[in-house]
Amino acid sequence: MTLIHDALTDVRGLRVGHATCAGDGFLTGTTVVLAPEGGAVTAVDVRGGGPGTRETDALDPRNLVQRIEAITLTGGSAFGLDAASGVVAWLEEQGRGVPVGGPGQVVPVVPAATVFDLGRGGDWRARPGAGTGRAAVEAAAGSDLGAPVQEGNVGAGTGALVGPVRGGIGTASTVLDSGITVGVLVVANAAGSAIDPATGALYGDFFAGSGPVTYPSPAVHEAAGRRLAHVRAQAEAAHGPAPLSERQAALSGPAKAPAPDPDPDPARQAPPPLNTTLAVVATDADLTRAQAQKVAGTAHDGIARAVRPVHLLNDGDTVFALATGERPLDAANPLALNEILAAGADLVTRAIVRAVRAAESTVTPGGTHLAYRDLYETREQAEGEA
Amino acid sequence: MTLIHDALTDVRGLRVGHATCAGDGFLTGTTVVLAPEGGAVTAVDVRGGGPGTRETDALDPRNLVQRIEAITLTGGSAFGLDAASGVVAWLEEQGRGVPVGGPGQVVPVVPAATVFDLGRGGDWRARPGAGTGRAAVEAAAGSDLGAPVQEGNVGAGTGALVGPVRGGIGTASTVLDSGITVGVLVVANAAGSAIDPATGALYGDFFAGSGPVTYPSPAVHEAAGRRLAHVRAQAEAAHGPAPLSERQAALSGPAKAPAPDPDPDPARQAPPPLNTTLAVVATDADLTRAQAQKVAGTAHDGIARAVRPVHLLNDGDTVFALATGERPLDAANPLALNEILAAGADLVTRAIVRAVRAAESTVTPGGTHLAYRDLYETREQAEGEA
Repeated sequence: MTLIHDALTDVRGLRVGHATCAGDGFLTGTTVVLAPEGGAVTAVDVRGGGPGTRETDALDPRNLVQRIEAITLTGGSAFGLDAASGVVAWLEEQGRGVPVGGPGQVVPVVPAATVFDLGRGGDWRARPGAGTGRAAVEAAAGSDLGAPVQEGNVGAGTGALVGPVRGGIGTASTVLDSGITVGVLVVANAAGSAIDPATGALYGDFFAGSGPVTYPSPAVHEAAGRRLAHVRAQAEAAHGPAPLSERQAALSGPAKAPAPDPDPDPARQAPPPLNTTLAVVATDADLTRAQAQKVAGTAHDGIARAVRPVHLLNDGDTVFALATGERPLDAANPLALNEILAAGADLVTRAIVRAVRAAESTVTPGGTHLAYRDLYETREQAEGEA
Repeated sequence: MTLIHDALTDVRGLRVGHATCAGDGFLTGTTVVLAPEGGAVTAVDVRGGGPGTRETDALDPRNLVQRIEAITLTGGSAFGLDAASGVVAWLEEQGRGVPVGGPGQVVPVVPAATVFDLGRGGDWRARPGAGTGRAAVEAAAGSDLGAPVQEGNVGAGTGALVGPVRGGIGTASTVLDSGITVGVLVVANAAGSAIDPATGALYGDFFAGSGPVTYPSPAVHEAAGRRLAHVRAQAEAAHGPAPLSERQAALSGPAKAPAPDPDPDPARQAPPPLNTTLAVVATDADLTRAQAQKVAGTAHDGIARAVRPVHLLNDGDTVFALATGERPLDAANPLALNEILAAGADLVTRAIVRAVRAAESTVTPGGTHLAYRDLYETREQAEGEA
């Protein structure tokens, strides 16, 4: 197989769909990873101290369900888990899920995990709903096999922040010496920072393996610090988000809860320090569910290398692993899984770097959210040209 | 409290003792962390795929034993776990352990974890035994409170390797803004590398927070690569370790198994790629057992930042967390634990860097084991003076 897009979809049979809810108080969305019909071996490892998940207990290798049709990653914190309902409904219509009765009688088990992005678009109650999940899975199903994956502030990464800057969706893939493909998709949204505070370099770049890191110039780093401090001071001075004149959904499907009276307590309106990095690590290797769980576990090392600190009480960091089973591991080598473990972690690091680089600055009634590229890379370029 | 030694022993009441078994086929040892009498709240998180542990199930927060008197870290792979027996025996003599009957009727529960270092001193069967464990706990008990901790190739770090270079013992500590002290001790011994292969920099230095990293000069990095390749080629050409003329223990206590006939199959004599990084993260904070377990879990992020890849099938990476309970967490702050989580991971990274920097090159009948300082730092200095 030729590596085409450096994306999760380079793992044959996997599709990705985003549903983005932006504007009118929204800054959130949902991303669905859709397995080939019949599903993929799936596992999960939850390491954050504040996870928001659904159907993850079913993934314990000791439990019944063997294969999973789709994974839902979503914004909207605990509320956003409703997006999975739309994916479940769509899969039922397709007759895809765990067969439990006669023809068409299936139960789709759709593991889901959520990131915290409440209030970032200005409306605390603007969250993904079942319709958002349906839109994301339909986008996935309608995409070509091997299609590129959009990065940055789309889908579940629409409202993402990593420390003081914008996060988002990132993806990466590689083909190992064995011919096995590993692909990764992340939603980078962390309480910790992806940026070395002393230099402005991205931590993940230290692991790129391409020689000494090019550090931002001290002038650019200082200017970035000033701009971030200014935005932070503005946010602290503001008494909650500005009122919204309109409250319709920005996209077919996203649900707004009723009773949208502005909260009188500004402290409760301010974004609490809740965050989460989600990842899907996929491979065409033939893995057992226990092996897939080990892959999900070591992938957290890739988050640790790109974000510091991480796995805190207010992070919900969760990694899913999917194995489509096309390529057997070398049965003669008891350590054959190691190359997948190592690659999964490395790709997660790279995908987080890509997510942060792809993200864009956004101004909403909920605040000003600056992007790394505007703070560092555009500035560096301008300085170079000046 | 003033930070004195940048060591685990800066957490008041904790003592560290090493027993080193070097020479005559040995290159191994045992390190004991001794809690104050009455013990400390203790937890464990095992993330490696090839762990060697003892009494770790007792640390599950749901299980009976509330406090632990001592932790044993040891070389010798599964065989070396016998070192814990010597610690158990010493504690029983002191009347320290879980009270289960009348006076003096205690059961000392001594959690232990082991690193793989078999054959590195030349004799596959030269391993720590109960006597080594007793020597280590006696060294700890005999040390002053707050004594410095010896780093490098001592105790359980005597035979350690990190990728192609020497590993060993490292330690570090910090006092947080809250006044809580966190201290760490590691045995760095990993299948992955602490060295960025593209530049020769230590991964952990990227997280030092002190500005741009000073990379080794390309000439020094190339020379290091050549020397390591030469040593590797020598090791591959050799047919097992040289025979040993003498087989007595180098230190009172270490056990050699009987029937020391050299294995006729050289492949079985060559060191298999088995490794493990062990850490103890300690604090004077008052933590529940579940909180201590969270501390042990996030500390693995510190290993991930210093060693790549890690947590593989042939790593047995295990972190213990100890809390002496002197300082309460801020009850008004539900995230008060976060600063301990972040500091624990950072200190583990720093301690691994210190372990690799403190290690010394060693030539034994089991092979030539080069140290980072000789490959990079002494060379860099010589080049600077030339």
